[in-house]
Amino acid sequence: MFQFWGSRTYSGAEGMENPGYCSGSFDGLHHPSDDDDDEMVDIAGATLDFSSTDDVPPLSSGGFEDYSTTTGSSSSRAAGMNGTRPSNLVDPLEDPLPGVGTYEDFNTIDWVREKSKDRDRHREITNKSRQSTVALLHSISDAFSGWLLMLLVGLMAGALAGGIDIAAHWLNDMKGGVCLIGFWFNHEHCCWTSNETTFQERDRCPQWQSWAELITGTSEGAFAYVVNYLMYIFWALLFAFLAVTLVRAFAPYACGSGIPEIKTILSGFIIRGYLGKWTLIIKTITLVLAVSSGLSLGKEGPLVHVACCCANILCHLFTKYRKNEAKRREVLSAAAAVGVSVAFGAPIGGVLFSLEEVSYYFPLKTLWRSFFAALVAAFTLRSINPFGNSRLVLFYVEFHAPWHLVELAPFILLGIFGGLWGALFIKANIAWCRKRKSTILGHYPVIEVLVVAALTAIIAYPNSYTRMSGAELISELFNDCSLLDSSQLCGYKQPTNTSETGAGNSLADRPAGEGLYTALWQLALALVFKMMITVITFGMKVPSGLFIPSMAVGAIAGRLLGVGMEQLAYYHHDWFIFKGWCSPGADCITPGLYAMVGAAACLGGVTRMTVSLVVIMFELTGGLEYIVPLMAATMTSKWVADAFGREGIYEAHIRLNGYPFLEAKEEFEYSSLAVDVMRPRRADPALAVLTQEGMTVGEVETLVESTHYSGFPVVVSQESQRLVGFVLRRDLLISIDNARKRQEGVVSASQVVFTEHAPTQPDDAPPPLRLRGIMDLSPFTVTDHTPMDITVDIFRKLGLRQCLVTHNGRLLGIITKKDILKHMAQIANRDPESILFN
Amino acid sequence: MFQFWGSRTYSGAEGMENPGYCSGSFDGLHHPSDDDDDEMVDIAGATLDFSSTDDVPPLSSGGFEDYSTTTGSSSSRAAGMNGTRPSNLVDPLEDPLPGVGTYEDFNTIDWVREKSKDRDRHREITNKSRQSTVALLHSISDAFSGWLLMLLVGLMAGALAGGIDIAAHWLNDMKGGVCLIGFWFNHEHCCWTSNETTFQERDRCPQWQSWAELITGTSEGAFAYVVNYLMYIFWALLFAFLAVTLVRAFAPYACGSGIPEIKTILSGFIIRGYLGKWTLIIKTITLVLAVSSGLSLGKEGPLVHVACCCANILCHLFTKYRKNEAKRREVLSAAAAVGVSVAFGAPIGGVLFSLEEVSYYFPLKTLWRSFFAALVAAFTLRSINPFGNSRLVLFYVEFHAPWHLVELAPFILLGIFGGLWGALFIKANIAWCRKRKSTILGHYPVIEVLVVAALTAIIAYPNSYTRMSGAELISELFNDCSLLDSSQLCGYKQPTNTSETGAGNSLADRPAGEGLYTALWQLALALVFKMMITVITFGMKVPSGLFIPSMAVGAIAGRLLGVGMEQLAYYHHDWFIFKGWCSPGADCITPGLYAMVGAAACLGGVTRMTVSLVVIMFELTGGLEYIVPLMAATMTSKWVADAFGREGIYEAHIRLNGYPFLEAKEEFEYSSLAVDVMRPRRADPALAVLTQEGMTVGEVETLVESTHYSGFPVVVSQESQRLVGFVLRRDLLISIDNARKRQEGVVSASQVVFTEHAPTQPDDAPPPLRLRGIMDLSPFTVTDHTPMDITVDIFRKLGLRQCLVTHNGRLLGIITKKDILKHMAQIANRDPESILFN
Repeated sequence: MFQFWGSRTYSGAEGMENPGYCSGSFDGLHHPSDDDDDEMVDIAGATLDFSSTDDVPPLSSGGFEDYSTTTGSSSSRAAGMNGTRPSNLVDPLEDPLPGVGTYEDFNTIDWVREKSKDRDRHREITNKSRQSTVALLHSISDAFSGWLLMLLVGLMAGALAGGIDIAAHWLNDMKGGVCLIGFWFNHEHCCWTSNETTFQERDRCPQWQSWAELITGTSEGAFAYVVNYLMYIFWALLFAFLAVTLVRAFAPYACGSGIPEIKTILSGFIIRGYLGKWTLIIKTITLVLAVSSGLSLGKEGPLVHVACCCANILCHLFTKYRKNEAKRREVLSAAAAVGVSVAFGAPIGGVLFSLEEVSYYFPLKTLWRSFFAALVAAFTLRSINPFGNSRLVLFYVEFHAPWHLVELAPFILLGIFGGLWGALFIKANIAWCRKRKSTILGHYPVIEVLVVAALTAIIAYPNSYTRMSGAELISELFNDCSLLDSSQLCGYKQPTNTSETGAGNSLADRPAGEGLYTALWQLALALVFKMMITVITFGMKVPSGLFIPSMAVGAIAGRLLGVGMEQLAYYHHDWFIFKGWCSPGADCITPGLYAMVGAAACLGGVTRMTVSLVVIMFELTGGLEYIVPLMAATMTSKWVADAFGREGIYEAHIRLNGYPFLEAKEEFEYSSLAVDVMRPRRADPALAVLTQEGMTVGEVETLVESTHYSGFPVVVSQESQRLVGFVLRRDLLISIDNARKRQEGVVSASQVVFTEHAPTQPDDAPPPLRLRGIMDLSPFTVTDHTPMDITVDIFRKLGLRQCLVTHNGRLLGIITKKDILKHMAQIANRDPESILFN
Repeated sequence: MFQFWGSRTYSGAEGMENPGYCSGSFDGLHHPSDDDDDEMVDIAGATLDFSSTDDVPPLSSGGFEDYSTTTGSSSSRAAGMNGTRPSNLVDPLEDPLPGVGTYEDFNTIDWVREKSKDRDRHREITNKSRQSTVALLHSISDAFSGWLLMLLVGLMAGALAGGIDIAAHWLNDMKGGVCLIGFWFNHEHCCWTSNETTFQERDRCPQWQSWAELITGTSEGAFAYVVNYLMYIFWALLFAFLAVTLVRAFAPYACGSGIPEIKTILSGFIIRGYLGKWTLIIKTITLVLAVSSGLSLGKEGPLVHVACCCANILCHLFTKYRKNEAKRREVLSAAAAVGVSVAFGAPIGGVLFSLEEVSYYFPLKTLWRSFFAALVAAFTLRSINPFGNSRLVLFYVEFHAPWHLVELAPFILLGIFGGLWGALFIKANIAWCRKRKSTILGHYPVIEVLVVAALTAIIAYPNSYTRMSGAELISELFNDCSLLDSSQLCGYKQPTNTSETGAGNSLADRPAGEGLYTALWQLALALVFKMMITVITFGMKVPSGLFIPSMAVGAIAGRLLGVGMEQLAYYHHDWFIFKGWCSPGADCITPGLYAMVGAAACLGGVTRMTVSLVVIMFELTGGLEYIVPLMAATMTSKWVADAFGREGIYEAHIRLNGYPFLEAKEEFEYSSLAVDVMRPRRADPALAVLTQEGMTVGEVETLVESTHYSGFPVVVSQESQRLVGFVLRRDLLISIDNARKRQEGVVSASQVVFTEHAPTQPDDAPPPLRLRGIMDLSPFTVTDHTPMDITVDIFRKLGLRQCLVTHNGRLLGIITKKDILKHMAQIANRDPESILFN
């Protein structure tokens, strides 16, 4: 995802590569995180690529071994702690310095400290609220700010989704023709305003003219067809070109589905600008263009990204969320639910999606708030009514016939198909993306998009099932045929003189007519085409979701199987398996249901969603009846796909991009101990530590400058190696610098003191520099014999960045999240250097 | 809950009070946990009471300071760890001794160790599966055993719930009369089999005779009424007596709702027999009796308990779950979902209930499996079809009119009512239960139940709304009036010559008729009665759920408000607030919806459920339309109730009973440090520790026998206090005992060695006893300066039992879960000794 335009400068990663960063200057301090969320915009035109330079990853290129870059978040905590304990030292750092408590770009946050900071803040507000009415009001407004924020997120995301739907619908119709009453009407709307059409013919009205009609004056004949064909390709290319150019020019982060990155961000990583306002604006516009261009992509994943951008931007309105990375991630989790809620009109499914698929830390409070936000968004979307049918859901279906137990066999078959396709798709897509990264292909994203768009348009136009948009296709495939249905898919032979079926049972299974056979052929071709084109489409530099293409593949396969079953039941209703429930003339098999089950199976195979998928599908139909088929297919699909590799597409992309993501779903299955993973390794030089007294300012500065670690354990003495605390490089440098400037008598020979009481010194010695205030007095430790499965559990559950390793009370080493990921990569025979960030 | 029959012996807590336990004998070892889940049965006739003896709590009465009773679960772990590290000592404990890895009754499990144990087991199976086909099959069957177990739990719980429904329905009708065709038919069924009745009169058929008809021969007149009244009271008393006697005689744990205990068990506590087969049998039977007796209680909470019993019993079929307390709790979490699923026919709501309300550790895998089990159970129940309407849900409703934004005001009013009632109910119920515990009242549970049952029956009979069962009442209140409805609640004046309303709009708002006014008075009286009687009913020694009574209270209040609004709109449709949406003759206000919203609000106020409640209600109606009113009411209710106290009824009962439950929802809001909470306190004697070498067997035995701690830290030496590991009392005693019996030369003077290499000893010394194998080499540590909010977070998230406290690498003290709970009680000005267990 980060790989952009192929060039090799590191503008986006400047925070890490900043030459000043390691040599003691503080350029980074003038950029508190909450003000430059959009700094990506400044470098958007520039090039950004860290993934294609596998040999020189930015972090290790300078020998930068970041044990911890939790820049300064704990100093206020430490100060707060000192406040509760007797201390006879004046703390030189009582007021936090600017820049303390923020993080560098591409770093991992420390959940424990962030949450602790928030609890401190909350405690302070609660304590103050007892003193005055104003403070009490502040405390109440603080308590409700979360709800207000959720309301705003829901409203904004719902409104944006409505706008996107309307715009995409209009642009999509634009490929076919134009409305003469006003070009801003889409096809359906154009004919609504016309009085000349009946309800049945509502999509054929004189006001709407295809391009051929407009240009050649006739809609018949080969020439008109060619004109329409060319116009279709022209618009598709135009939209695709606009989309990729806008992304390239203004917001490189707007490409892709965004879900892998959001998962990573929610797990505690910082990617500045990824959820900024430019990303929001550009992603919204380009999503409309990309969807309209006819490419095999959906808008569901990107809608999650859009909702998260809204949430992130709205967070700036509230200090509580602006200043705390952990709290902000709670809001983002809710926003992910909002995204799915507006994508499918499924609020409960959205919340479960956020819980199951994207969130890392999902407390119950967030569950409740997510649900609220998802509902607000769904109702906002409904009042905008983009589909014009006042339905909340994207694909509303209503089936008339119940399903029979025997049908579980074909449903499970669909599950197997879905699983196989999911596994294959992930492998093929990852291989293709890897190729894009490592070859010249990745250097020409605009050309790539144009070629794929042209290819898609050329192949898609002749086949009516690929010409229509993915959502329309799925809608049609899910649809249960009624007698009046004029669609090709319902081209059954009409029962002429029905003595056995009876006129009353008009929905009975019927033999396939010519229309249906044509439709089946077209669907089979569409299936092959969709399967191939989706592999190369997902991962291009335009916003692209995977839900709709996956569902389309599954729906086609399901519909094909469903029609097959239906015909089998019609011609062989005396077979054993049909006996008793599928008598001749009964309406026993619903091909639409098969399409739905197939869609769920394929989506499940690709994303490995389970409960949320079933619930989303359940919300589409609104009946508990069909949960069992859906569940059988989804479960089978997941099991089959897992047999080929346990990663879903999002995890695969996370790994491809080398994000530091510790998967919470999978167990750590190896029997390593902490001592096997920690650093320094046996051959390495000893761990760089500070002693709590006895080191001079000069010695500390030398140590800090000669290493690249971003944090240093403080021990009682070099001999005992008994751990006292942990101090961050950034805090250390800020404090020394500050002391040298402001505090009298602090020179290189001054002693640096981390103890509570100042040591006795000779009278002529310069005054000591007291730094206990910036030390984290409660670093996490494990013993060297701790099994790694427990250590990984601790990292995951507490959201740690680093953990110190002790043996019999002596400090032995350190384990960072990156060390764990490298260790896991090593065991799995992958390149440990592929984990780029920490 | 544990307070039974008032006497003061401690049979149930024998494991803790066993005098042999502290003096070195191993009575407990002959009871591996998985075999004596039902040991409660043996003592069921005996008396069991630890709660009423506040002055002498069982744990502290003997000075029993259990730092850790995680009896031996880690030794296999430690052995496994040694296997991966070079060790030149022969471990005397290579095969785990019997009893190792199990827990005493009323102790807390160690989640980290249990999960680690399971991962070890899994790793072993996976490794073996590469060697042979049999092992591979074993590995596959192991992987699918979880799903099979879920299937069985779903089937069993669904079947039981169906049976309970049918039996309760039958017994409930028995209070009114008997079926002449066969006494085993209930009223409805009796009249179904009769051909003489029309559909409208299906509840009046000659085959069904009231007791008065049977005895006096007439169903009219005062005498017949009195006979029916007396028979009603007689049956109510009989059922109540049978219920309380059965509970008392066979399964004291079968009383109450069970949810507080299940929450505690799921958080890692062990209450042996609570989920045993006797509890299951007795709870199932007495639940039917209690519900039929007409007491103000429901079957929903107890159904959760029943489902958990099923799950626990079925766990015995699979080694994976039988032997691992953590894995078993995953199954129990799913079973809780199953319970709610069958209670309401709401599988998704059930899963969310388990997630939100009862579960402690709920990984994603459990989410998926819970969902599966909940669905299986719901479908099993539906195929049994106890309600005879092939509906899945208990209260199926379908409303015709949409709601209007203005109606949010009364909905929020209902929310306020629900919140106030919830808060009041909790306070009153807890006060009453406390009174029951501390006064003579608690000594006569049978009489208490009989008195309350008699009171309920006497007051309830004359009022038709209290005479019917709670579920019927709610069903009637939720119901939307249709024109044909003969119920009193629909006793509107018929529009006679309707020029303005028109015959087509027959559901329009109408003026209340006499029937409705009578109904309103009866409902108002029923409301007062239900509110009072429920307070004293919940907590009696019969199975009693709170869902139905709470919902009934809310539904009555809601219906009253709804009818009020309806009449207001009818008579004042020109008022500003009704303008534009409630024109005369329109069907704009649905009193049934108000009843539903009221029910949700009251249930929310009592239990503080949020999402799960809304989803359950949503599943009842099946329409997203009404989520917003439900949500507004539930949110208001929760906020209002939280203002009076943040605990729901289940948490309040947990605290009342002194269970060691660390609430995951509430933040720890105080600024203490670990050093403030740990023991030993300043005035206490130093921490009892073992040294890794230099102590003799005799010294160790003396130390162990002179203290009551159930675990001892091992340090390098008394002087350095550097931590090496943690060893459990039970393991230590078992090993020494075992060594004295089996290992030659181990005498009191033998040195106990915890190091990896044997120390050099004089030649004439007896051979050392090597105990590294039983030591936990990875005890959890925090520093003394760690803020308690972080420490509490660690305890909650990792499921710890104890944590060692260090200062500058030296061991300083220990914090147990009990210490934290005591500290929290102390800060909240509660009696810290009320936390009884650990």
